[in-house]
This record gives sequence, structure tokens and C-alpha cells, in this order.
Amino acid sequence: MSLSEMNARERIVAALRSQPVDRPPVWMMRQAGRHLPEYRAVRAGRTFMEVVRTPELAAEVTIQPVRRYGLDAAILFFDILTIPEALGVEVTFPKGVGPRLKPTVQTAEEIIALPAGDVRGSLDYVAGAVRETRRQLGEETALLGFSGAPWTLACYMIEGGSSKSYATIRSMLHRDPKTLGILLDHLADLVIDYLRMQVEAGVDAVQLFDTWAGELRREDYERVVLPSTRRIIDALKSDGTPIVHFAKHPGHLLESSLSAHPTAVGVDWRVDLAHAATRAATVGACVQGNLDPAELFADPAWIRARVREMHAAVGDKTGHVMNLGHGIWPSTPISGVEAFVGAVKELAGG
Amino acid sequence: MSLSEMNARERIVAALRSQPVDRPPVWMMRQAGRHLPEYRAVRAGRTFMEVVRTPELAAEVTIQPVRRYGLDAAILFFDILTIPEALGVEVTFPKGVGPRLKPTVQTAEEIIALPAGDVRGSLDYVAGAVRETRRQLGEETALLGFSGAPWTLACYMIEGGSSKSYATIRSMLHRDPKTLGILLDHLADLVIDYLRMQVEAGVDAVQLFDTWAGELRREDYERVVLPSTRRIIDALKSDGTPIVHFAKHPGHLLESSLSAHPTAVGVDWRVDLAHAATRAATVGACVQGNLDPAELFADPAWIRARVREMHAAVGDKTGHVMNLGHGIWPSTPISGVEAFVGAVKELAGG
Repeated sequence: MSLSEMNARERIVAALRSQPVDRPPVWMMRQAGRHLPEYRAVRAGRTFMEVVRTPELAAEVTIQPVRRYGLDAAILFFDILTIPEALGVEVTFPKGVGPRLKPTVQTAEEIIALPAGDVRGSLDYVAGAVRETRRQLGEETALLGFSGAPWTLACYMIEGGSSKSYATIRSMLHRDPKTLGILLDHLADLVIDYLRMQVEAGVDAVQLFDTWAGELRREDYERVVLPSTRRIIDALKSDGTPIVHFAKHPGHLLESSLSAHPTAVGVDWRVDLAHAATRAATVGACVQGNLDPAELFADPAWIRARVREMHAAVGDKTGHVMNLGHGIWPSTPISGVEAFVGAVKELAGG
Repeated sequence: MSLSEMNARERIVAALRSQPVDRPPVWMMRQAGRHLPEYRAVRAGRTFMEVVRTPELAAEVTIQPVRRYGLDAAILFFDILTIPEALGVEVTFPKGVGPRLKPTVQTAEEIIALPAGDVRGSLDYVAGAVRETRRQLGEETALLGFSGAPWTLACYMIEGGSSKSYATIRSMLHRDPKTLGILLDHLADLVIDYLRMQVEAGVDAVQLFDTWAGELRREDYERVVLPSTRRIIDALKSDGTPIVHFAKHPGHLLESSLSAHPTAVGVDWRVDLAHAATRAATVGACVQGNLDPAELFADPAWIRARVREMHAAVGDKTGHVMNLGHGIWPSTPISGVEAFVGAVKELAGG
């Protein structure tokens, strides 16, 4: 294939595999959703769950940012908290307080008593949304799937929602790491099944989000959390599916993440991108990231300069998927995103 | 002075100045408060504000952990959110939702219109609490004062409370760094006055808490936030007051913090302590920390091993004040704290 004829889908798959591209592909974490007026129009009078459970609506909001900005990939519009549903945990999103999960799972007895869980049965609406999105999106744009990672899913299941310090699960890590390990392993099995279901329905690559991993010391992360994550990465890679591992942290878990050999490592906005690229290259991993979502509020000139800086930081060390270092904020101005995407499209390949 | 006759107060001041000690001194961030049954007894039927504004009660709860555990230092029992009060901002603590500040300060007009603020007038009850605590504590135990750092105070003032991503202030950092700088400078003036008032009333050293600094990229932290922090450190050091700079982050702001030359750098639980000690030594700074508050839930044997590991990590590189890497959690078992403090007291000096 000639680089000059590369389409968006080929561009992102090549970059993830650290193969030559005409320019870095670009998408943004949480690109679909509240920052877009066309999303707010779809949501008017409808609940979040109504949208994600109706394939036509889920596909529409998934495709909206691609249509507006000409991004190289769509990412499925869902929350990371789907897996707990398959375990009979009720997940709700009361306005202004973040997710609420009921019942919580905190004791060894409660963890052992969890059902096996039937991802394909409980979450078949996700597969339906993938198929409908692919149908509408066409064959030339990448479609990405994702899941929360076991640690982050367990954080929500044990705490019952977001938390300031995740004290219950973090104390369990020290009181009873064995039982916590059983929960993480159980979740890993479900995540593998869930991601494979998405691939079968039509996604090109998947991302594993470990939002709360950054709270942990590296030693504890590697001892208790990483084994289940590594198992997911191994399973997807053995299928030939590219997998991006994104954990939110300013760098202290970079080596841990790379030691699990993901296809790409998602890099938080606080990580030095040149350093991350150098380290990722040693295990043949691509880097994805890492503009600070806050920078989308800066002058277009600042944003353009930062895009060039990120491009130079990765250089030809390894593949690079341009992205933010965390999800886009609902208050983000459209003009900031346009400056970001526009600047990426002006770049030369590598 | 012979090391064998060192009292707690001398021990902590010597360690902060990286001078010889018989053993590392020990205290714990947020040591006074909810994890202690004797604190809960004082609070029964009283509000938080009633306790902190009554010198006898404030002194009592400040001293409680020293009495129970034999710690080397008491730290004033207050919230970090005192300065906004001096600016006419109402600070309340509704149960279960964290602090609420009203009115918020978000526009350039609102920032310019803030009153000069009279710390000594508005917060004289803090000086009263310091004097009463010193009276009850005696002369042989250290008493520490503290303040929130300008960035963290501004986070609460601008967002009106805790926030998931501090999007309003972080976008202001990029939209209008100049106005944000004016607010940070104003707050720095007040913090200097506030800390000096505490020193005059009897504290031996002070700590500056920058809880939310870790959300920032190093470049943005150094460009916008560090100048006001540096000014506070310079002012206190020029008075001869030891000052500990604690910012919550897993290491990406360590060099920035050290570049402001604090007497000691507070080290978050996720930072490699040996590395921090090596780097701190290059600017003659002591290190303070960094047991994970979660580890206080582990077996006593684990805790003792970790204390010895931390002691060895610092070695004779520089001074070391044993502490947690973040505030103690309300659910912490007393037995875990006893294991921690007991293990420190078994250590040899350095």
C-alpha cells in the first residue's frame, strides 16, 4: 500500500503497530458526548441508558465527532461500567454525583458469591451498537472498542461509586490481597469475553482503561493488579487484535504498563512524551497521547505549537497515535478541538 | 547536645535541617481527627468549626495523637481552607460531600474585586489555638503549623469545592494565566502572613500543602504555580522557620518542588523514597514520608518491614522525617498506627 493512499482505518492500525504512516492518526478520549451540541440534541429528553441501548442512537453519537472533525477513529459511545451489569450489579448515573453501583461487593463472601456472569447475554446490545456503527461508518474509518480494566471496575464495585481515596479497596489490597485477586481475575475473564465480542462485531482495536491505577504504588500495582491486566493483553494480542493500555498516572507506572507488552501505551498528559516514546520503543509499543484536555482552552497558536512539540517528541522512535492525555471535558470549546485536529493533519508522516 | 538526650522537639528540628538525630522523628499527616475514638468523643454533639474555634478543644484534639502514640510532633488541628475565610468566602463542610465554598471566584472581575484580606484579624482564633496547644503540650514536643498552598486554595475557591478534574481552574490556567497569577500572588501574601502568625504564636516549623498540584503538567506547574509557592518558602526561610513543601503527586513534580529549596520535601506514597532522598540531598533538603496510608491496614510485620525499608532507602543521604505519604484515613485501625510508630522508635539514628 502506498502511504499517500492510506485511509483513516489503515493509518490507525499501522500507527498502533508502529508501521509507517503518512501522518499520525488522531482521535480523542471521550470524543463523543457532552462537548458536542449535536450530542446534546440527541440526549434531549432521553436518558444515557436509552441512548446506549438503542443501536441507531449509539451509532449516531459514536459517529458525530468523526463527522464534525474528520477524526481517524470512532470509539464506541459507552461508559466503562458495563461489566458490573453482567454480574447483576445495578449501575445508575444520578445527576452530578457520578456513577452509583448497587449492591457493593466488599467481603470475601460477597466476592466468592458473585455469579459467573454472561457478558454476551447481558451486553449483546453493545455488539448491536458496534454492528450498526460499522454499517453507518463505512469501511474507511477505524472503530475502536474498549473496556474498563479489572482494577478500575473493582474500585467502583467495592466503593459503590467514585471515591476520594478508594480507601476500601486500597485497604483490602493490604488486608486481603488474595480475595481481591480473585475478584480481579474474575473481572479479567469477563473483560476478555467482552472485548472479543466487540472485535467479532466489527471493532479494529480495543483500549483498556485503568483510570484509578495511578493511586497505587508501583510495587502494589505490579504485585496485585498487573497480572489480570497482563492476561487480557495476552489474550487479545494472541487473537491479533491491537490493544491500547491506558492507565491514568503521571509516569510512575509506565514501566509496569510496558512490561505487559500492550500494542500501544496510552500516555497521560503529565508524562514526558519523549521519554515515554523512548521506553515504549524498547518493547515495540506505540505511544498514544498526550495533550492536556485543559490545553484545548488555550489559543489556537498554543495548541498548534504543542502538536508540533508532541510530534517531535515521538519523532521516529516508535508509532504515535495523537490523542489527549485524558478524556475531553464537556466545557471544551469546539474551536480548540478544531485547532488540535487541524494541526495534526498538517503534520508529515514518520 | 548529646544525641542520647535529644527530646522530640529537638529531634524533629534537627531532622528537618538534615542534622544528626538519635532516630528519625515521626508524625503523621492528618494524625488528629476521625480515626481516634477520643477525637470522636470530643466531636460528639459539636461541629467541626466549634472545635477549631475553641482554643481548649482545638488544643485537646491536636494533642490527642501525641498522647496516644508518643509522636514527636503535634500538628495543628485545622482544615487547609482557612485563608478563603479571610477573604470573605464562606466555607462549610456539609456531611459526605467535602468542603463547599461560597461565593466562587471565577472571572477576572471577581478576582480583582477580592478584598485585601486581614489574616491576623479574621484568623486570630488559630493563633489562640497555637498558644493554648503549646501551653498544654509543654516545651519538649514539636508543634507544627500549616497552610494550604495558593494553587490548592485557588482550586477550591474557583471550583467551589472538590472536583473531579478541576476543569474550571485548569482551563483558566490556559485561557488567562495572568489573572490566575494575580489570584495566586494574592493568596501567597496571605499565606505568608498566616504562617508567620502561627510561628509567632509558637509553632516550630510549618508545612505547605499543595494537594492538587499533581493534576498539572510539570511545565505548567513551574510556569504558573511555582512562583507564588517559591515566594512563601523564601519568606519563611528568611525568618529562620523550617518549611516542608508537600505536593500530592507520584514524582513528576519532585524536581520542581526541590527547585524552590524547601527545608524539607514531603514525599507522596507513590514516589521512590531512595530516589527522592538522593535528589533532595543535592539541594540540602530533608525528605518526609512516605508510607501508603493503605499499608496501615496490613499485618504489623509488613508495616515493620516497610519502616525498615524506608529507613534504609534514605540511609545517610539526607535528613528523614518518618510520615505517611498522604493523610491517615478515618477507617485506619489503631493497631496499624501502633505498629508504624513502634517500628520507627526501634530504629537507630543517622
